[in-house]
Amino acid sequence: MPILSYLTTTHFDHGAIKMLAPELKRLGVSRPLLVTDKGVRGAGLLDRVLATLPEGMAPPVFDGTPGNPTERATLEALALYRAEGCDGVVCLGGGSSMDLGKSVALLAVSGEPLARFDPLKGGAKHIRGVAPVICLPTTSGTGSEVSVGVVIVLDDGRKLTIANPMLIPKVAICDPELTLGLPPLMTAATGMDAITHCIEAFLAPSVNPPADGVALDGLYRGWRHIERAVAHGEDRDARWQMMMASTEGALAFIKGLGAVHSMSHAVGRREDLRAHHGTLNALILPTVLRFNAAACADKYVRLRQAMGLDAGADLADAVAARNAAIGLPSGLAALGVTREMIPELVPYALADLAHFGTPVKPTAEQYAQLYEQAL
Amino acid sequence: MPILSYLTTTHFDHGAIKMLAPELKRLGVSRPLLVTDKGVRGAGLLDRVLATLPEGMAPPVFDGTPGNPTERATLEALALYRAEGCDGVVCLGGGSSMDLGKSVALLAVSGEPLARFDPLKGGAKHIRGVAPVICLPTTSGTGSEVSVGVVIVLDDGRKLTIANPMLIPKVAICDPELTLGLPPLMTAATGMDAITHCIEAFLAPSVNPPADGVALDGLYRGWRHIERAVAHGEDRDARWQMMMASTEGALAFIKGLGAVHSMSHAVGRREDLRAHHGTLNALILPTVLRFNAAACADKYVRLRQAMGLDAGADLADAVAARNAAIGLPSGLAALGVTREMIPELVPYALADLAHFGTPVKPTAEQYAQLYEQAL
Repeated sequence: MPILSYLTTTHFDHGAIKMLAPELKRLGVSRPLLVTDKGVRGAGLLDRVLATLPEGMAPPVFDGTPGNPTERATLEALALYRAEGCDGVVCLGGGSSMDLGKSVALLAVSGEPLARFDPLKGGAKHIRGVAPVICLPTTSGTGSEVSVGVVIVLDDGRKLTIANPMLIPKVAICDPELTLGLPPLMTAATGMDAITHCIEAFLAPSVNPPADGVALDGLYRGWRHIERAVAHGEDRDARWQMMMASTEGALAFIKGLGAVHSMSHAVGRREDLRAHHGTLNALILPTVLRFNAAACADKYVRLRQAMGLDAGADLADAVAARNAAIGLPSGLAALGVTREMIPELVPYALADLAHFGTPVKPTAEQYAQLYEQAL
Repeated sequence: MPILSYLTTTHFDHGAIKMLAPELKRLGVSRPLLVTDKGVRGAGLLDRVLATLPEGMAPPVFDGTPGNPTERATLEALALYRAEGCDGVVCLGGGSSMDLGKSVALLAVSGEPLARFDPLKGGAKHIRGVAPVICLPTTSGTGSEVSVGVVIVLDDGRKLTIANPMLIPKVAICDPELTLGLPPLMTAATGMDAITHCIEAFLAPSVNPPADGVALDGLYRGWRHIERAVAHGEDRDARWQMMMASTEGALAFIKGLGAVHSMSHAVGRREDLRAHHGTLNALILPTVLRFNAAACADKYVRLRQAMGLDAGADLADAVAARNAAIGLPSGLAALGVTREMIPELVPYALADLAHFGTPVKPTAEQYAQLYEQAL
């Protein structure tokens, strides 16, 4: 089975869930808290994973992860972690379960509250350590199984991104079989999340050529296989490729992300809209690609190559067409975002960590225009 | 300064040598053995690096690294390491100094002899540990500053590759300023070594898409900048790009290498020829590209894109033309390799670790033909 040995030891293949038990042993974790959500449980994936564990290891399970991980739910899970004397966290699910589980591991060792660790406020120095984390993604996806950060909606309503190398999970178990049953719309949304990660990471101006290379390879795979994964979810190779694109996108975004994410996070924190992060990224991506086009002309050449597009092709149009082809809506308005909401979204976008990675930093006025265009 | 955080913490920029002292401190190394060669000393680079160290730290220096690192020289350096009570190794030089220093670090902790660690003979289990290693490359290059292996000519004449994750240096300090004075022919030869690493790693059939991505980015940079680096060695950007291509090639070859390297190693072990590893790779690469063309047609599409070649371009011809443009000879005969030597070279190629990574494994007859074609 391919093992990708970077900062996370990643077991990557169909059937990889069998590596969970040996890895728990290798990390010295005997009582993990298993963090998941009710959808994963309902899909039978929890039972499949629990069946791989040694007789007698009956890990406590927190299945209350909401659609977007909240501080409140994190603290609930942390209470269970402490009550059960846990010594590590296993996350089984999408980005929400993984980010929630990673946050529990952070709080368990470094203490509360989460806001203390805000990297934009010097929070890195407060991170003493993180309990061992093993992630099993069930979407393709956020790539949180190898990523440097977590995104949590705090009790005060802010969507906080905590990025720190200590949050990189020790082990990722990437088993595309866990995604065979992922419905088409979720496949489309999470797939575009992976593609957006690859694109935004590549465009981020920080210097990290290996990450650039990983981003382009992830984009190459994701772009070529997302339609098939949506239309033929049972296609094992398509699922493998999408999961790899997802993992690569997250490996790459050590460089930072950009305006698509800052804008998505600002919308995503609103509980009234319950908008999916991947869908938001997909819908906003064309607008931001147009915004960055002049400044990133050289990099767009390599993006087109990775995507197999012609030399002069319009990237934004290509993404918009792909969104339509895979059944995603064509604008934020379809998700319930209104013109009236825009002034309230803009300050959250400006304050988001991803804003600081974007190649061209939008002003408040420009963010407002971008939201208009993305409606 | 860009810091690439993968398994090696890599400080990468002009002036990075200033990071040596803080990194020695961070690793807890107070008495490093400095391993280098007389050419590096003569170029004034040793003094430049020693000047960055704290007052009072006068590290013992082994400058007897030969053109290709030998077991004999390694043991000499090891004796000095032990006599001086060293607790780590700093390598300053090309692949030879780095591989020799990494080998000293291996023997210092895991014991002798080197042959015991042959991965093709179950040697990995004997590796108990490796002393801390910091590498400062002065060529671009072998990429040994981040690589998983060492290549040493044993006393019995065999060129042994020991590949093991524990040999990955903890820290790499990649300062392109150290290469500004590298002469044109050495720039050409080491630059083609880097390019060969990127190509062979990409073609290796093992599954590691992130490594594929890194290989293609390294190839993109190396191919575009090698002519300028050769013709205008004072060009700081060209030197930066070539060093990055070199580092990326070695990050990528965790996947394995191929027939170019197995054939090069077989020639390189011969002390009568004193052939440079990079030059050998450059000269053999066109022949092996032709050999693999049918089996690797899909991958060749991506290689052409990375190299900026037209869709139908002949990769082997492009490499041969580039070799000529940068002043390298056109065949192994120019290095003194004769038809009569071939039968003796073939078994060494077949036994080389790189043989096992090649996409199409040449038989003995095929290796003989490949050597003929490469003359």
